[in-house]
Amino acid sequence: MTKNRFFQSQGPFTISDIVKKLGLKDEKLINDDFKIKDIQNLNIAEASDITFFNSQKYKKDVEKTKAKVCITTNKLEKYLPKNCKKIIVKEVLYALALVSKMFYPKADIDYLDLDVENADLKKYKNVKFGKNVLVGKNVEIGENSTIGNNSIIESNVKIGKNCVVGSDVTLKCCEINESVRIQDGCKLGIKGFGFIPLQSQNIPMPHIGSLLIMKNVEIGSCCTIDRGSMGNTIIGENTYVDNQVHIAHNVIIGKNCIIAGQVGFAGSSKLGDNVRIGGQAGISGHLSIGSNVSIGGGSGVVKNIPDNSKVMGYPATDMKDFLKKLT
Amino acid sequence: MTKNRFFQSQGPFTISDIVKKLGLKDEKLINDDFKIKDIQNLNIAEASDITFFNSQKYKKDVEKTKAKVCITTNKLEKYLPKNCKKIIVKEVLYALALVSKMFYPKADIDYLDLDVENADLKKYKNVKFGKNVLVGKNVEIGENSTIGNNSIIESNVKIGKNCVVGSDVTLKCCEINESVRIQDGCKLGIKGFGFIPLQSQNIPMPHIGSLLIMKNVEIGSCCTIDRGSMGNTIIGENTYVDNQVHIAHNVIIGKNCIIAGQVGFAGSSKLGDNVRIGGQAGISGHLSIGSNVSIGGGSGVVKNIPDNSKVMGYPATDMKDFLKKLT
Amino acid sequence: MTKNRFFQSQGPFTISDIVKKLGLKDEKLINDDFKIKDIQNLNIAEASDITFFNSQKYKKDVEKTKAKVCITTNKLEKYLPKNCKKIIVKEVLYALALVSKMFYPKADIDYLDLDVENADLKKYKNVKFGKNVLVGKNVEIGENSTIGNNSIIESNVKIGKNCVVGSDVTLKCCEINESVRIQDGCKLGIKGFGFIPLQSQNIPMPHIGSLLIMKNVEIGSCCTIDRGSMGNTIIGENTYVDNQVHIAHNVIIGKNCIIAGQVGFAGSSKLGDNVRIGGQAGISGHLSIGSNVSIGGGSGVVKNIPDNSKVMGYPATDMKDFLKKLT
Repeated sequence: MTKNRFFQSQGPFTISDIVKKLGLKDEKLINDDFKIKDIQNLNIAEASDITFFNSQKYKKDVEKTKAKVCITTNKLEKYLPKNCKKIIVKEVLYALALVSKMFYPKADIDYLDLDVENADLKKYKNVKFGKNVLVGKNVEIGENSTIGNNSIIESNVKIGKNCVVGSDVTLKCCEINESVRIQDGCKLGIKGFGFIPLQSQNIPMPHIGSLLIMKNVEIGSCCTIDRGSMGNTIIGENTYVDNQVHIAHNVIIGKNCIIAGQVGFAGSSKLGDNVRIGGQAGISGHLSIGSNVSIGGGSGVVKNIPDNSKVMGYPATDMKDFLKKLT
Repeated sequence: MTKNRFFQSQGPFTISDIVKKLGLKDEKLINDDFKIKDIQNLNIAEASDITFFNSQKYKKDVEKTKAKVCITTNKLEKYLPKNCKKIIVKEVLYALALVSKMFYPKADIDYLDLDVENADLKKYKNVKFGKNVLVGKNVEIGENSTIGNNSIIESNVKIGKNCVVGSDVTLKCCEINESVRIQDGCKLGIKGFGFIPLQSQNIPMPHIGSLLIMKNVEIGSCCTIDRGSMGNTIIGENTYVDNQVHIAHNVIIGKNCIIAGQVGFAGSSKLGDNVRIGGQAGISGHLSIGSNVSIGGGSGVVKNIPDNSKVMGYPATDMKDFLKKLT
Repeated sequence: MTKNRFFQSQGPFTISDIVKKLGLKDEKLINDDFKIKDIQNLNIAEASDITFFNSQKYKKDVEKTKAKVCITTNKLEKYLPKNCKKIIVKEVLYALALVSKMFYPKADIDYLDLDVENADLKKYKNVKFGKNVLVGKNVEIGENSTIGNNSIIESNVKIGKNCVVGSDVTLKCCEINESVRIQDGCKLGIKGFGFIPLQSQNIPMPHIGSLLIMKNVEIGSCCTIDRGSMGNTIIGENTYVDNQVHIAHNVIIGKNCIIAGQVGFAGSSKLGDNVRIGGQAGISGHLSIGSNVSIGGGSGVVKNIPDNSKVMGYPATDMKDFLKKLT
């Protein structure tokens, strides 16, 4: 299991601890003191982790999961391996929010990082800092990188060499490769818009994932990029993002993409390489956008798009069809 | 009359003062030394206030108004109570801008708050402050609240207990209830986009209202929420707002609403409870959106929407109709 | 030639230097030691400048250009004056990026301005500064202007008198006339979204232009306005811009325009006077929008629009036609 760089698991917890927290009555589980170290997605969970399974979409991952404990529903439990203990609930995501919060009590809100201090110029010898830069604990910054005025690099963030970070930038829970440029006012690695809606008081979903930015990426001014809730948000190598773009949690963007101003991504969509998106387009959640796709400005993409397609419109359709309809 | 927490009326002014300021020639009014303490909307004005009436939409409020002086037009004056003195003008809003500026000369532009200083840790005992936090005069912050690095809490702002305010946040002219979270980079309570357009130089409309945020609200990163021009902008209890949302002056949002990223509201619309709005949707001004309404991502809402509706499209129509048209 | 206020040309370079940089083999040019002082657009280049010509759109400018050296293609060279030396390349913009970077090595990325320091109160006698304001070298600020907390005024920026700059604002490469108001969180004069896309690593286009803001302009909170790549971005007198608007490089906006929240402009479009644009509308690149044009909220403008038009829709068409289609 890769250790989480940004959040420390408060585990282990026993199955008993978890079942009690969820208010379940299953007598067998309530007495089960099997120890669980961490919580993970189906596909990367280890034998000591608890995982969750809430949609047939992930059937493939279920078959191969190494987790020995899984939160799921009555309907879905049959897909899980026999040797995996099932914690049956009505609302998997609700249970997940509660259990995630047990393991990671500080990931459901972007709490103040109390460890940031003025940048220690001795520690970061070949880094240029602007004025009033705040840096947390265990931050790594590669040589020849520059951090702009008033920017905040929260604890455990990693920045590669030859990066240029602008002013008024906040970086949290992110790992940034070399030669990345981030323009003024970006807020990256922030908690995403995930919660269990309840009438009295919503339950925010802990966001224990990270944001990974690959090398040679450029991010324009005043962008917001959320870290993953579980798993990561990723911006691929040599991808350029214009101003005021919003990228939600768990979006994965490939290499060499060009994303124009004010584009917005809902959560968990995955883009291939060489995707071009015009200004103000919106990409719905949980979509798969192929490589070499071109999406016209102002479009609203609500369906998967195969490789090499050109789409436009709201909802986005084949560009030729869209243009034909106009005439 | 509720005293304005954020702006101090420069009144009283006499009717004579006001009529002269407006360049009117009415001999009777020009010699009227009736004293006016403040300026208010029809429905909340007291006997010592001046008010204004510029549209038949507000006929109901007119009948009940306690104001003894009202700015209005030739056409509308007949709806006003007899004992209310009428100041007749051609352009009510233009006159309103001038008179508001008499009473509140510092509300037409977001002037620098000269009273902000580094947070006084002794004064706010159970509050955690990040670095470089600036706090104005008469600020109240509830216990167990946290204010992030570089944030600015301008004079007279009230923040409840258990709030988490992120970094690079500016709060002005707002009252925030308990357990509210505001993510990095938000600018809340700012002057809205209201002015009298003139070719040589527009006249900015004073914004003397506030922004009220009810308990358990979450506001994502880099949102802008304008305070009311007259009256307040309100975000209802347990409403969650995603990143880069823009909410204009005098918008009133109900309870338990879910507003996704990059949504924009023009001024003065009113939403019920449990409204869900998809990413990048836009809501025109002065609309009434019912409760339990669902608005699809990317939609453009230009008409009132009754309770329990699902709408989508540009302009937004019934979601079923919208989907039917596509096939 | 107007000297560039913000970037210093590293010239002169000889034609030989340039041809070698571009990897060309032309024997005559490779030995030409004609000295070039600067790089400029066709229409403003002087005899000592190099210019570029990459589209028949600029044929008029070509005839009158004073430049004695021009980067162009085989197909286009015939339009250039005889006494202008042609450097023939396959990709004019690629060559332009390389040559611009020779003359202006610090304009392709928004590097940290190392000269900013806490505002010198003695130098700016009649200016009010908030806390933690950073000011670069050779900054001019007119009297009675105010700069908000944490704002950064980078070197060589000019601000007129009676301006109100909010908090958390960054100004670089811009000249701001009198009585301009800029609300909190704006990032103005930043490098735009221009680059030569290459699979391995895009080449960012140097942005050596400025941003000019004329008098009485108001810019709402959290706007991003890019400076020109070559030539300027201009916001005309008495134009009002709402929150979260994005204006890309080389956009030219006329007088008395009203631009509502979250509007976005791609690069190089030109607007006349008295243009009104509703919220969230998008304007494609390189368009010509006439005067007295009204663009409905949420519209996507992809074609030139003549004076006095009202348009709406995506793509935007005549407003009457748009409304007719709906019924």
